[in-house]
Amino acid sequence: MIDSAFIARLTELLGPKGVLTDTNDLEPHLKEWRGLYRGGARVVAKPASTAEVSAVLKLCNDAGVPVVPQGGNTGLVGGAVAPEGSLILALGRMNRIRAIDPVAHTMTVDAGCILADIQTAAEAHDRLFPLSLAAEGTCQIGGNISTNAGGTAVLRYGNTRDLVLGVEVVLPDGQTLEGLRPLRKDNTGYDLKNLFIGAEGTLGIITGAVLKLYPRPRDVATAFVAVPDAQASVDLLSLARGQSGDTVTTFELMNRLSVEMVFRHVPGCSDPLSEVSPWYVLIELSSPRDGGGLTAALEEILGGAMESGLVTDAAIAQNEAQGAALWRLREEISDAQKFEGGSIKHDISVAIADVPAFMTEATEAVLALMPGIRPVSFGHVGDGNIHFNLSQPTEMDKQVFLDRWAEVAHEVHEIVHRFGGSFSAEHGIGQLKVGDLEYYKSPVELEIMRRVKRALDPKNLLNPGKVVIP
Amino acid sequence: MIDSAFIARLTELLGPKGVLTDTNDLEPHLKEWRGLYRGGARVVAKPASTAEVSAVLKLCNDAGVPVVPQGGNTGLVGGAVAPEGSLILALGRMNRIRAIDPVAHTMTVDAGCILADIQTAAEAHDRLFPLSLAAEGTCQIGGNISTNAGGTAVLRYGNTRDLVLGVEVVLPDGQTLEGLRPLRKDNTGYDLKNLFIGAEGTLGIITGAVLKLYPRPRDVATAFVAVPDAQASVDLLSLARGQSGDTVTTFELMNRLSVEMVFRHVPGCSDPLSEVSPWYVLIELSSPRDGGGLTAALEEILGGAMESGLVTDAAIAQNEAQGAALWRLREEISDAQKFEGGSIKHDISVAIADVPAFMTEATEAVLALMPGIRPVSFGHVGDGNIHFNLSQPTEMDKQVFLDRWAEVAHEVHEIVHRFGGSFSAEHGIGQLKVGDLEYYKSPVELEIMRRVKRALDPKNLLNPGKVVIP
Repeated sequence: MIDSAFIARLTELLGPKGVLTDTNDLEPHLKEWRGLYRGGARVVAKPASTAEVSAVLKLCNDAGVPVVPQGGNTGLVGGAVAPEGSLILALGRMNRIRAIDPVAHTMTVDAGCILADIQTAAEAHDRLFPLSLAAEGTCQIGGNISTNAGGTAVLRYGNTRDLVLGVEVVLPDGQTLEGLRPLRKDNTGYDLKNLFIGAEGTLGIITGAVLKLYPRPRDVATAFVAVPDAQASVDLLSLARGQSGDTVTTFELMNRLSVEMVFRHVPGCSDPLSEVSPWYVLIELSSPRDGGGLTAALEEILGGAMESGLVTDAAIAQNEAQGAALWRLREEISDAQKFEGGSIKHDISVAIADVPAFMTEATEAVLALMPGIRPVSFGHVGDGNIHFNLSQPTEMDKQVFLDRWAEVAHEVHEIVHRFGGSFSAEHGIGQLKVGDLEYYKSPVELEIMRRVKRALDPKNLLNPGKVVIP
Repeated sequence: MIDSAFIARLTELLGPKGVLTDTNDLEPHLKEWRGLYRGGARVVAKPASTAEVSAVLKLCNDAGVPVVPQGGNTGLVGGAVAPEGSLILALGRMNRIRAIDPVAHTMTVDAGCILADIQTAAEAHDRLFPLSLAAEGTCQIGGNISTNAGGTAVLRYGNTRDLVLGVEVVLPDGQTLEGLRPLRKDNTGYDLKNLFIGAEGTLGIITGAVLKLYPRPRDVATAFVAVPDAQASVDLLSLARGQSGDTVTTFELMNRLSVEMVFRHVPGCSDPLSEVSPWYVLIELSSPRDGGGLTAALEEILGGAMESGLVTDAAIAQNEAQGAALWRLREEISDAQKFEGGSIKHDISVAIADVPAFMTEATEAVLALMPGIRPVSFGHVGDGNIHFNLSQPTEMDKQVFLDRWAEVAHEVHEIVHRFGGSFSAEHGIGQLKVGDLEYYKSPVELEIMRRVKRALDPKNLLNPGKVVIP
């Protein structure tokens, strides 16, 4: 239990800068940005080192205090929301880049480093850290790793899991697993690293990581492409991967309504094409090879695709500024959607080939359930990952609409399940999808997850109530 | 215990074709190709389906019979060697390619498929399955996955772990974990897939997998390059990655003695360069883009590297046959080494930047330990993975030399450990390195592995005595 003796001991361990109990100080740690949840914890611990994390966990383990780790607090499933009686472990003071090795293409970082700072540090050494997502100016790498974040470069570089060579983890009892190995190959026993990656802080606290870097792209080609239907986008992707020398880095699908909302609500964003199309693709090719002629290659690919009817029109960026403008049409969708009332969001994935059929079926189903509902479908079609978001019917009351979240989500997730897909492609489980996990996972898969949780966190003190209930 | 009633029940489950007890039939399953071990099991179960694997495991679980899974039996650490009293579970009859989806770049296979057959099936659909290693004509994909096999394309495509989207696993009690998901993104709970990959059959039996495919290379450039020292090879790699548009697929380092043994013992292999060099690199660039001019690019890179002294000479293949001839110089090293007496082998990795210093230090150390010992150092420098193999002094008795294996290996592994490296980069633990695992892993890492083993295989019936002793 957290009492004054506990707080005193915590302050001894971390110093006054390491313990927050004041209401104003707590506030940013209790807010959840979508407003779906609110934390109730009364204390935030802010360790400045791995040793301090270890000391805090040992203290909590002895006192039976639940610990909720927090990075940038930008998660989308309530995974960092801390209930009353728990301690928030905020990693933000651990924000040191420990080492960069440009020759070996590796960087070793503290968990609390902001993603954008890591990208910048890589660039300063003429390298690329490819993880990129909307929250990159705020989110912390420890959170990215703990949630196996996705983003817009997964098609080429993989999920966060694929970008991590080693992790340093503090276990519930305060012991530290020293796994900061920069090795590309290491077959010495079970893959514990991947067990902690994506576990959302329920098995251990990630305090540091060795990241993979890549050569920095020197040749980039970007286009905003009109396609007649979702099937054409899937076919275009397959064609482009082969013809471009597998340099496709980004391949994002958007329906007309998604970009229309951007044109409508975001200053400076307008339609780069003259005709309206039901679907669009943002495609980017990139290569670290100078003068590789990717813009010419992209023109040729799109030209051929127009002849065969896969593409109806395209705007190809002629410089960096034009490329950035095309990117904004994709990046601003989530924000633009806020101006259109309530939104019920899904973060699903299916096999890439099944994306078109899924979208047709899911659209019909939600329209049958609620006439006038407006699908804002967009996402990483190259990964089979669609944010099948639904804006409310224009005339409906927002709360009346949002009250039907569970019903609508169930309908969508049932279709995803029939396609053998995932009800959480990149956002994770947190607390929002604990019920989905129990409903959709097979009993044997759930049982194995529970056994793992019990084996690693026998007292159930790390982020309890999230992911899997032991 | 295995008695006649057990055999009768097994035969009921699998039919007569599914149970081997005859001495001649057992022989290939008891042999271990390096001759370091010999199995003592008296029965081989050869299930033809996942359901049959499940039935066998349930039977063994009820009877308390240990199970040793076997693929192509080509492992290098005794992981598939079955002691007396255990049952060998041979997956070879499960050799069906279940599905290929060229658009989604995926293939679903049975665990018993031979790796070369998978490569061929991918090619027939104009796709690449990039896993490639010496044993590919015999080894099975289930074994590759269970050992997280490496090979010669890891630099570009990753280890086997990185090539697997989903696995189907039968657990010790016969329950089946249905994980054949072709999803590129799926953040729904703990990453159980990676727990089974590389676990060498100690946590569950992998019966099927969904594999990632890639566009097939259409432009390939290969060169055999003389470099003055190992440091030059590391610098050349960094340079080549950037200048070639990150198309370096293979980057293998070999000392002079390695290739000299090939020239000496392998018919048709001769030195493509006129001057003798202490070190060589086999480099291959590849791209799925037709006419990408990679040979020209490679010439330019090597030309620049010669001017700066990183490279002293190079033979660039002008056609496929010449490329294949250069590849043989690398591929034949292990076989050529057999003609030179006993060999003590190490499969180590360090950070790429540490490869040169490691090799200098390790070479000095083993020469001090045993004057006249001959390092045959070669391997995947692009992954920091060196096969630091040691041929016996020419005048020494083979057995006298091999009797010092443990002493020599300890000396080498101590140096690896000081560099923060791995004593088993790609071959795994099996039984050969169980002692190394206990010696070099931290107590906390070992304890977590043991907890995982106990949680998933509480009766310790799956490949007991391998990897980690619970």
